[in-house]
Amino acid sequence: MTGTMLAARLHERGKPLAVERVLVPTPGAGEVLVRVRACGLCGSDLHFLGGDAPVARLPITLGHEPAGTVETIGPGVTDLTEGLPVVIRPGDSCGVCPACAAGRANICEASHVLGMHVDGGLAEFVLARASDLVPIPAEVPFEQAAIVSDAVATPYHALFERGALQPGEAVAVFGCGGLGIHTVQLARLAGAGMIVAVDVRAPALTRARDAGADATVNAADERPARRIRELTGGVDLALECVGRTETIAEAVRSLRRGGRAVVVGMGSEPIALPPPNSFSWSEHALLGSFGSTLASVRRLLGMVAAGHLDLSSSVSEILPLVDVNRAIDLLRSPDRDASRVVIQPSA
Amino acid sequence: MTGTMLAARLHERGKPLAVERVLVPTPGAGEVLVRVRACGLCGSDLHFLGGDAPVARLPITLGHEPAGTVETIGPGVTDLTEGLPVVIRPGDSCGVCPACAAGRANICEASHVLGMHVDGGLAEFVLARASDLVPIPAEVPFEQAAIVSDAVATPYHALFERGALQPGEAVAVFGCGGLGIHTVQLARLAGAGMIVAVDVRAPALTRARDAGADATVNAADERPARRIRELTGGVDLALECVGRTETIAEAVRSLRRGGRAVVVGMGSEPIALPPPNSFSWSEHALLGSFGSTLASVRRLLGMVAAGHLDLSSSVSEILPLVDVNRAIDLLRSPDRDASRVVIQPSA
Amino acid sequence: MTGTMLAARLHERGKPLAVERVLVPTPGAGEVLVRVRACGLCGSDLHFLGGDAPVARLPITLGHEPAGTVETIGPGVTDLTEGLPVVIRPGDSCGVCPACAAGRANICEASHVLGMHVDGGLAEFVLARASDLVPIPAEVPFEQAAIVSDAVATPYHALFERGALQPGEAVAVFGCGGLGIHTVQLARLAGAGMIVAVDVRAPALTRARDAGADATVNAADERPARRIRELTGGVDLALECVGRTETIAEAVRSLRRGGRAVVVGMGSEPIALPPPNSFSWSEHALLGSFGSTLASVRRLLGMVAAGHLDLSSSVSEILPLVDVNRAIDLLRSPDRDASRVVIQPSA
Amino acid sequence: MTGTMLAARLHERGKPLAVERVLVPTPGAGEVLVRVRACGLCGSDLHFLGGDAPVARLPITLGHEPAGTVETIGPGVTDLTEGLPVVIRPGDSCGVCPACAAGRANICEASHVLGMHVDGGLAEFVLARASDLVPIPAEVPFEQAAIVSDAVATPYHALFERGALQPGEAVAVFGCGGLGIHTVQLARLAGAGMIVAVDVRAPALTRARDAGADATVNAADERPARRIRELTGGVDLALECVGRTETIAEAVRSLRRGGRAVVVGMGSEPIALPPPNSFSWSEHALLGSFGSTLASVRRLLGMVAAGHLDLSSSVSEILPLVDVNRAIDLLRSPDRDASRVVIQPSA
Repeated sequence: MTGTMLAARLHERGKPLAVERVLVPTPGAGEVLVRVRACGLCGSDLHFLGGDAPVARLPITLGHEPAGTVETIGPGVTDLTEGLPVVIRPGDSCGVCPACAAGRANICEASHVLGMHVDGGLAEFVLARASDLVPIPAEVPFEQAAIVSDAVATPYHALFERGALQPGEAVAVFGCGGLGIHTVQLARLAGAGMIVAVDVRAPALTRARDAGADATVNAADERPARRIRELTGGVDLALECVGRTETIAEAVRSLRRGGRAVVVGMGSEPIALPPPNSFSWSEHALLGSFGSTLASVRRLLGMVAAGHLDLSSSVSEILPLVDVNRAIDLLRSPDRDASRVVIQPSA
Repeated sequence: MTGTMLAARLHERGKPLAVERVLVPTPGAGEVLVRVRACGLCGSDLHFLGGDAPVARLPITLGHEPAGTVETIGPGVTDLTEGLPVVIRPGDSCGVCPACAAGRANICEASHVLGMHVDGGLAEFVLARASDLVPIPAEVPFEQAAIVSDAVATPYHALFERGALQPGEAVAVFGCGGLGIHTVQLARLAGAGMIVAVDVRAPALTRARDAGADATVNAADERPARRIRELTGGVDLALECVGRTETIAEAVRSLRRGGRAVVVGMGSEPIALPPPNSFSWSEHALLGSFGSTLASVRRLLGMVAAGHLDLSSSVSEILPLVDVNRAIDLLRSPDRDASRVVIQPSA
Repeated sequence: MTGTMLAARLHERGKPLAVERVLVPTPGAGEVLVRVRACGLCGSDLHFLGGDAPVARLPITLGHEPAGTVETIGPGVTDLTEGLPVVIRPGDSCGVCPACAAGRANICEASHVLGMHVDGGLAEFVLARASDLVPIPAEVPFEQAAIVSDAVATPYHALFERGALQPGEAVAVFGCGGLGIHTVQLARLAGAGMIVAVDVRAPALTRARDAGADATVNAADERPARRIRELTGGVDLALECVGRTETIAEAVRSLRRGGRAVVVGMGSEPIALPPPNSFSWSEHALLGSFGSTLASVRRLLGMVAAGHLDLSSSVSEILPLVDVNRAIDLLRSPDRDASRVVIQPSA
Repeated sequence: MTGTMLAARLHERGKPLAVERVLVPTPGAGEVLVRVRACGLCGSDLHFLGGDAPVARLPITLGHEPAGTVETIGPGVTDLTEGLPVVIRPGDSCGVCPACAAGRANICEASHVLGMHVDGGLAEFVLARASDLVPIPAEVPFEQAAIVSDAVATPYHALFERGALQPGEAVAVFGCGGLGIHTVQLARLAGAGMIVAVDVRAPALTRARDAGADATVNAADERPARRIRELTGGVDLALECVGRTETIAEAVRSLRRGGRAVVVGMGSEPIALPPPNSFSWSEHALLGSFGSTLASVRRLLGMVAAGHLDLSSSVSEILPLVDVNRAIDLLRSPDRDASRVVIQPSA
């Protein structure tokens, strides 16, 4: 594989991406070149574009939710065949840092995130380490596989691997964007008790009900914690998908004794919580959650393939790579619903 | 409340129950008299009748799945009102033994089981400690509430509190009687991946499919572990609801590396497993499970009330107390399906 | 048992306790009268005295760390004999609230705390529920048994049941008063890796080293989080025993990726933490901890009896009940070390 | 690095090792050549020699507990320098199989064990993947570092990562050879309550007492489970380090309600346990344990370096490579104590 390819690259923060021709990279030892069939756009991409979550270098090709087919296999890679449909994990892991050594590869201290530290998937081809590929079952279309690795696996990790949700437990979800909607959907799939969804946008709340929420609270109208406590007596688990000071505090205030709040939203505002005489006396827990595990990506792909998890309404638009800036505008639109926009660089 | 009542009492092992008049008991300090509106019959009752699981004294009134209304309140009991619909937990707990002290009241060393150690719920009235009552939400009919405390809560405890099932994990269920069917139903409710149900009776397997199994194996026709491994690559969690040597061994053989097998079936045959070079090298786990927790009974009643858990097909027959021996014959019938027979002592 | 007894009672917030004669209470059903042989004084007592943690009624007899002998047994209590040496748990539990139902009796929603909601142990006799007594092994003196139930069991719960400390993990302890010193001692006993103790008082740090700390940081001289990260690369577990905004924030800042901070200190200042982009990306956890479990009190008494846990330096003074106000002054003294003052109401 | 080196190789099962000259291997991409300064001999080596645990090919260089210094660094390896003291993990892991994906690299489905699947450390040099090296702190001598990765880390994993030992819990250790003695030592280090050690050899029991056991039972004289129950009321955790049918059954019989038994011994005899009516009613757990995690090897090296873990009596003999067969005879000797023999191929 030599020659050039189209890639959507960020040259300057705050500016539109340039869709331009660059050299197709060559896989080194342990690497694989993947032809990108679909790449999800994500709220984090807006942070990278805007610069408040800085990328490692400029220019850089964005895109951390790619799925595609194995195009070229580098030296030393076995067990992979050309043409195999694969998802690429958003971040790699080193295998040797203390976090990796303890089996927590998702918080690897030396991780490289696609489209943040290295060139990502908004291109016809993308380079990946062979060990970061997950085969896609035949039943799963590329656009759904693409979003599983981040937009669906991140809530999975937050709900089950961090939040330890048990069937019948009451759940509150703060923020019904892409992460929040899949959080609601997965909590319902997992047999949660009452699920209360919170947002300030009425359409997002409607969508949350469709995804399985039993009740909704519009935080523009009332204090959500008080209302959630009226509805549930306090939830066992709250998921914060916004990343802001006030929503995190409300998430904790919505808990029953012994309840857990998981913060999965990104944000740079400080966290402020009730004092120890409330927080500790109630044995509340505030748990950070980041990314997902390889195991959860595999499981989710299997669940989609088996028909247990329906992601057919998760992707609203599929656009070609040349329309990437229009797709970003869609993502920015305040009144659009929470479903994913996916870019299709290669047919 | 004085006078007499009808009760179904075991006078001699192996003989039919005598439905006879006995004195209505008077609640002492901390106790409550409950008018029994429904009492489930359970496979364990056959063990008590037959004598292989011995009761503590004769005669004794059987029945450990009662639900009803508070009739008379003993001294020192507050927070309860006459007429309140309640479930009575099958076994009480002392609160001070090492198991209770560690928060595991279900294996209390000094527990008294209704219908085994003390007079049970196959009577117009039954005595209970106030602390063993769980209020029934208005939406839940007595016959469903009755079976929740044992036939549904026991699988809940086995699957989630002992087995730690996570969504997407592959599950095998050995034995599709009352426990097994509810195990399948709850595993599906909790978002399990592929569920494989095993039995030797074709109707039980049909019912397991209706309850949510993705595949079934008739153990009369083939070795289940081999077939399960073909279907799933080895399951993450196996639930053994039979209690026999061979099924427990097959449950362990059906596991993938790192998998857990939970033994919930009662039985007096010894357990025999593969040697350490298989069991330990694969880090398999064999976990005993007994009864359920008060928390799980509450959660399940809430799930039924909210419409998240549908038990409408769990009870096949409701019979008056005078027909208790006919009900027991139904339970013994080899070709009946796994749904519960419930006795209705008081209208 | 009738007649009167001496009791140290709070009549007005901020005033000294009145040591006065009151009626000896009579045990009701399920209750026991205990002759108090020793009762620890605790930092919380200063909060009750001062009124910032309000007691339920006035006047009230303070004291929530009593140990003694069974004097009179109320109706319905079996398995206890007169003269038996017992510890009384600081707070009782109802057995039926959601927290109790889930096996977390220490955060019971209906708990009554001795010396806060009901008359406590700073008296010749105290009333207790039989189920809240823990027998004292013969090898353990009353003054050590008294402090086990709170001053030692609370750190046990925080370190192991909430913090899940594993041998070899690096630990930071913020605040080296009574709770903090026992936290250091128990962490060392449990095989922690490097233990770093933090305080603003030089004598407290010296005492922490004696208790097993490998290094100390005087927070009056330098920012503890930075220093702790230099020493350890970030700790796996931080225990906050102060309850203040700044120390809680420093505790979280001292963590490595994936680390946990447990807040065990009481306090009414709000909690302020680094933003999600730090807290969540590192998968930090902030865990409230309150009181202890019955199981841990038993275990600790066994550890003292077996000689595995040495509390001989935990009690510095033993004073008679009439000197209770002098004992409180000792407790208030800023330069005294962290060992416990114990009151001995009965010889 | 070219030329030849001495290696102790197995040519035929049951025969002595041949100490012979072979070619020094050349590190490929991602690999490192390590000069072996110390390599522990282990009970498993006797299984490989005897053939009941078969090696993957013949001839093969044995030795899975090597420590040494980095000699030559292969292409693509960064962050390592020549001369760095390192331990090599006994088995590698693939990073992508379901076990690795779930953070359980120790049961990797594609693991290669040194001296079993590939040439091991009983040679002047050994090849390793860079990601399987753990740096050795300056304070730790090579012979102690060598045994940490298997003889000490395996009990660590069994006790804490599988057995979840908490301070004050009663422990029984069955088999006081190399694994068992370190199990006793680590349990004591971690603040276990009463530790009861079981063996049939009086000198092993003496050594167990020295390592921290509170009591011992000679299984040649009495049934250990009965005696352990007398001493402790049933242990919370039993560690089986023998791998035989009878000792595993006794380990389970020695448990209290809710107790766990961890099987860490290798063996090809089937496992036989009490029936469900005992095992499940008591909620016993039988947990297989295999190898260790990278995190535990790191922690243990840190604990030795800090002086918290004393392995000075763990190595009884250090012999040159030419004496390897004499060392194996020592290991076979029935009356020798449990300390490790270490081979020193390079000075």
